[in-house]
Amino acid sequence: MTPREPTFADVQAAAHRIADQAVRTPVIESPALNRRVGGRVLIKAENLQRTGSFKFRGAWNMIAQLDGDRAIVAYSSGNHAQGVAAAAELKGLPAVIVMPGDAPAVKMRNTRAYGAEIVTYDRAREAREEIAARLAGERNAVIVPPYEHPDIIGGQGTAAVELIEEAAARGVQLADMLVAASGGGLAAGTALAFEALSPATRIHIVEPEGFDDHGRSLRSGQRERNVETTGSICDALMAAEPGRLTFSINRTRVADGLAVSDAEARRAVAYAFEVLKLVLEPGGAVTLAAVLAGRLTPRGGAVGLIASGGNIDADLFAEIVSAPA
Amino acid sequence: MTPREPTFADVQAAAHRIADQAVRTPVIESPALNRRVGGRVLIKAENLQRTGSFKFRGAWNMIAQLDGDRAIVAYSSGNHAQGVAAAAELKGLPAVIVMPGDAPAVKMRNTRAYGAEIVTYDRAREAREEIAARLAGERNAVIVPPYEHPDIIGGQGTAAVELIEEAAARGVQLADMLVAASGGGLAAGTALAFEALSPATRIHIVEPEGFDDHGRSLRSGQRERNVETTGSICDALMAAEPGRLTFSINRTRVADGLAVSDAEARRAVAYAFEVLKLVLEPGGAVTLAAVLAGRLTPRGGAVGLIASGGNIDADLFAEIVSAPA
Repeated sequence: MTPREPTFADVQAAAHRIADQAVRTPVIESPALNRRVGGRVLIKAENLQRTGSFKFRGAWNMIAQLDGDRAIVAYSSGNHAQGVAAAAELKGLPAVIVMPGDAPAVKMRNTRAYGAEIVTYDRAREAREEIAARLAGERNAVIVPPYEHPDIIGGQGTAAVELIEEAAARGVQLADMLVAASGGGLAAGTALAFEALSPATRIHIVEPEGFDDHGRSLRSGQRERNVETTGSICDALMAAEPGRLTFSINRTRVADGLAVSDAEARRAVAYAFEVLKLVLEPGGAVTLAAVLAGRLTPRGGAVGLIASGGNIDADLFAEIVSAPA
Repeated sequence: MTPREPTFADVQAAAHRIADQAVRTPVIESPALNRRVGGRVLIKAENLQRTGSFKFRGAWNMIAQLDGDRAIVAYSSGNHAQGVAAAAELKGLPAVIVMPGDAPAVKMRNTRAYGAEIVTYDRAREAREEIAARLAGERNAVIVPPYEHPDIIGGQGTAAVELIEEAAARGVQLADMLVAASGGGLAAGTALAFEALSPATRIHIVEPEGFDDHGRSLRSGQRERNVETTGSICDALMAAEPGRLTFSINRTRVADGLAVSDAEARRAVAYAFEVLKLVLEPGGAVTLAAVLAGRLTPRGGAVGLIASGGNIDADLFAEIVSAPA
């Protein structure tokens, strides 16, 4: 069953619903980055969101509405896991999260710290949706999906609403907007927000090279799958294909897809450390990487981007900042 | 010659003067930190300031007012160096900076990148003020001191004004305010701002153990010197004694001095990485360290703090986050 397609009204309702618990993250502008790029870049720093990524927005938007005391099941490479675990803890509900066995240790540790139970699976050989469905049946639990749900897409879109509001407060008109995609929930929420509030802005999805299913799908007009299931440093951005619901939204609202290499993602993590003084994970840095690597054709206006997460293992971060690619 | 003592009017004038060029840095609140501390903590993230520390505020406030095309001389352990170098570059003036030979490589590299010339000295054996005075005489240059000047103190105080404004916008009354001190310029500007705008807030200076000259001076009522000149991980906080001017302001407006160990500063840097997703240098993390280590006697209200800088060498950061003390 495909859930109903959300509209901007879902994003607006989510903005009210999550205001008490989600952090209104800052929009950061760096004179050094502006000078390097030759224009203004507004960074919505969702690494500073509760649980270290934007995922808390959608998770809390859905879980806050649940009645009764049913358990929650989710599947996630790690950021949705933490968002769901923290939201379930806030609501006082038990949560079990299906995570790939190769997820970063920090994501597993934090998910457990929010009180959730973790069930691991093999990213290359098992279907996480099936494991989650089985667990939900056994425990009479509600599945909180990572992107295919109007409440999740609506919740993620609130980050874009806040960025648009802050840009307006600073007198900035965004010509281009960059957003990363794995399943496409953040991109879909962003697309709905911009369509309603800033329709002249061109939306670009950014993905890791080799995991550019959204970019290829946008070009072909239908949902394309990635060939590989593992192998990117961007552990957060390896969903196999765009969601049905998210692609239905993004297909007509997103201009194109950009892809960045692992080396470019690493250099963006190092740049964020050295110049911006922000901790980003590789998947959270691909939008910055696209700007730094000149992937975006300059249109002469300001660029907005979401830095979507900062949950990175200390050892990998240490390696990247000590010896950028 | 001791310059005149600044008042809050200097802070207000500075706020107008620097608004176009300084970043209005975000005030960051972390639900995880609030839960750990058992109260609200508002972090003024000056690591996100232009040049990676609050020092740009005072430097630009003074240099923006200079007439003609005289050269600029400054002495600094590294953050004031970058602030002055960036401000001089903006103003189109040549700058020479006297820096200790053991300053972090990133601080030297960035200072040079802003176009400044660097002259190094031995922190343990030479008086940087004398070297700077000689250079200023030779080059007919203006000295931009790190703290003993009304424009510098006024400029640094603008960070506190912004924090007070943001706290008010969020409906938060700050019971306590933590600010680091080396020469005491940021603390003095902060004290003037709070005296005028939030007089019920208690101001606490935070220093590294062994370099607690402000704390001892506040207790004795006169300026006390540190015994050591090197040896703290907080390279930004090792001035030998409080400034005459800054202590004259702080003596009657600051409640007390708190000291944190190197290990506590390291743990705060690691906490900022893992939980807050911010890059802080040890000297920029001592206020957070004081909160995390329980140095502040709880008074039941909200706590404000300035995270004053994020200029740390990659190798040291890597070592700290991989193996916190």
